[in-house]
Amino acid sequence: MSASASGETAPFRVGLLGHGNVGGAFAPLLEQRAGEIERMNGRRPVLSGVLTRSRGDFEEILENSELLVEVMGGIEPARGYLLRAMQAGRHVVSANKQLLSQHGEELYEAAREHDVRLRFEAAVAGAVPVVRVLEESLSATPIERIHGIVNGTTNFILTEMTGGSTYAEALAEAQRVGYAEADPSDDVSGRDAAAKMAILARLAFGSPVHLDDVRYEGIEHLSTDDLQYARELDLALKLIGTAERRDGGLSVHVHPTFLYPGHPLAAISGPFNAVTVESEAITEITMSGPGAGGLQTASAVLGDVVSVMTGGARPPAPPLALPLIKDVESAFYIHLDVADRPGVLAGVTKILGEHGVSIKSVLQRGMGEHARLVMVTHPVLESGLRSAVERIGAFDFMRSAPRTIRVIEEEFL
Amino acid sequence: MSASASGETAPFRVGLLGHGNVGGAFAPLLEQRAGEIERMNGRRPVLSGVLTRSRGDFEEILENSELLVEVMGGIEPARGYLLRAMQAGRHVVSANKQLLSQHGEELYEAAREHDVRLRFEAAVAGAVPVVRVLEESLSATPIERIHGIVNGTTNFILTEMTGGSTYAEALAEAQRVGYAEADPSDDVSGRDAAAKMAILARLAFGSPVHLDDVRYEGIEHLSTDDLQYARELDLALKLIGTAERRDGGLSVHVHPTFLYPGHPLAAISGPFNAVTVESEAITEITMSGPGAGGLQTASAVLGDVVSVMTGGARPPAPPLALPLIKDVESAFYIHLDVADRPGVLAGVTKILGEHGVSIKSVLQRGMGEHARLVMVTHPVLESGLRSAVERIGAFDFMRSAPRTIRVIEEEFL
Repeated sequence: MSASASGETAPFRVGLLGHGNVGGAFAPLLEQRAGEIERMNGRRPVLSGVLTRSRGDFEEILENSELLVEVMGGIEPARGYLLRAMQAGRHVVSANKQLLSQHGEELYEAAREHDVRLRFEAAVAGAVPVVRVLEESLSATPIERIHGIVNGTTNFILTEMTGGSTYAEALAEAQRVGYAEADPSDDVSGRDAAAKMAILARLAFGSPVHLDDVRYEGIEHLSTDDLQYARELDLALKLIGTAERRDGGLSVHVHPTFLYPGHPLAAISGPFNAVTVESEAITEITMSGPGAGGLQTASAVLGDVVSVMTGGARPPAPPLALPLIKDVESAFYIHLDVADRPGVLAGVTKILGEHGVSIKSVLQRGMGEHARLVMVTHPVLESGLRSAVERIGAFDFMRSAPRTIRVIEEEFL
Repeated sequence: MSASASGETAPFRVGLLGHGNVGGAFAPLLEQRAGEIERMNGRRPVLSGVLTRSRGDFEEILENSELLVEVMGGIEPARGYLLRAMQAGRHVVSANKQLLSQHGEELYEAAREHDVRLRFEAAVAGAVPVVRVLEESLSATPIERIHGIVNGTTNFILTEMTGGSTYAEALAEAQRVGYAEADPSDDVSGRDAAAKMAILARLAFGSPVHLDDVRYEGIEHLSTDDLQYARELDLALKLIGTAERRDGGLSVHVHPTFLYPGHPLAAISGPFNAVTVESEAITEITMSGPGAGGLQTASAVLGDVVSVMTGGARPPAPPLALPLIKDVESAFYIHLDVADRPGVLAGVTKILGEHGVSIKSVLQRGMGEHARLVMVTHPVLESGLRSAVERIGAFDFMRSAPRTIRVIEEEFL
């Protein structure tokens, strides 16, 4: 703790890079909380400069700050600024999920090399402290699996669709109330969730995970039929990110997934985020709360600033290198529109059997000349399931392309 | 970080006080995780000594340790050992909720005075990292309210009772499966939950809260009737601890409480714990997971040890002194068994009106010669509600004593 000649403690100077939604909320929040933070931690945080598109000089702000907050988003110039700041011995706090999911190792390495703090709670799940909990509380326990609803926009849309809206109606409503951007593709494609799962997987398993390593599937192709089955079966359909140890490696993916009613993520509705962490020692911990939102994100950023002031956790250790496993086991829901004639079920089940797909439950429903066949499988390697479904799709009794959705846990149908 | 002459980093020596359920799980967990902790943090934690009832010497263990873990429980000798350790410049980690809720300020003061860490994640909600989150992430945001299910035993019993068991049956089942002690009075009376809420309230609001400051009410007197109403109305009946800002002061209490179905704590079933933190900036964050259990608690203790090794948060700042408010507003459920005759409802509502109790909804159900009158009030000062119910209890048409249960939120009936 440094002190001025007069005996007063010097303020903790924070430079702000970016002044959009989050930066605009951060500056007044910092001012509002400065007194209380000083009372609790001994130093008063003050804003030493702000860099926007039109004003401010990066080098001058760097010179005048002990810590830089980066809330610009995007890769460049954010990446260059953060690396330069750490080289100059400054701590950094970032809310930038794109950057961390694509250049994380470079940033962690810089933090280790220059012995500065790099914090990024706000990059995943807003004010829900999942980054901190993975970094700190759980360092004592080997994590087996993370499941997350890490994109509030898609969770809002799926909640609306569960209530009976079509995808287009739900998306329009999300845009109207400000939960979806004019161009929602990053959210609805699953890419935003994939970036966040890459960041969480790195923290939980200590092995580098790049956004490109995460397989993801969005919600644009989901049919209201599937949502209706979800309602009837009392299942929740969510966009779930999963990161888990599998066969000595690591699997990270994002898919629409059915959850049975007792699952801790099944009750997460609207624009909320939630993450469940599983390990043998702790069983299962769930954290939930509002996802994005300027004030929530700014609050998470300020929490990181306070954490640096009080000497919080170090950057992630140098990485292990667990192999990434692409083909993992999962239970699946299979939805087939078929002609209602003899031999259909026999044909389908024969092919499933040949690919090692074991059926847990079947629901057949006549619809006049055609019928719907809904099945849930026992856990099966995805490659086997895909091959079987491809062959089934070629039958002449099929009335539309087969649809499959993952299922977590088995207590259903 | 200290290093030996050979250039190797010295181990981080941890002394263990107590070797019961938690201590017995902690020692092997430490050994199992030591390599990974060393890889991530640079030093290897090792057990430098164990004090049990029959073996070990406290002063010798103190001498050989940088940090002491206290998992003995009870006030003395745990209190004396922790104070002595901090005076000698040792960090301490404790899982002792009795001690922290009754002598917290003395311990925090010692940690500040001797500039050592005092961590106690395991004292509340086992491996659910609520202590850490209140201390760190949320220091940037003024907390308005905490609601918690912080006793797994009572939550298990209430879950069983919601399924149709009587209190006695549910308690016997809890004892059979090991969730309740042979003498369950600390749990079922609400006292254990009150101790945990005292600890959380101190962290959230920065003002001293002693166990004696927390009003609490247990679950022993709950009737299966009330649980049946809960089922019919799709409400959850939980033992809820509340700590909140009220009129410039602080209110901390534990009561059986009805929750509407959308409340984040309503879905927490069985022996689980969960805490919801509300603030303007973050809206609402919920954390949930298994409560006690030797391994979960040991895992939280080890997380604290790692946090000290990596230079985690400081002891709480010197306390503010917010006044404790005893008489707070709440909505109430009122259950009256009355003779089924004219004038009863008029008599009841007249008295409620005279005490400022406004009725939100009424349900009257004839049962032959008597009737059940179930009401839910709008929020009202508890003192007013109590006076009114006392006067109503004196009516000659009453068939049994009136019963009241708090209600959180208003979306019901």
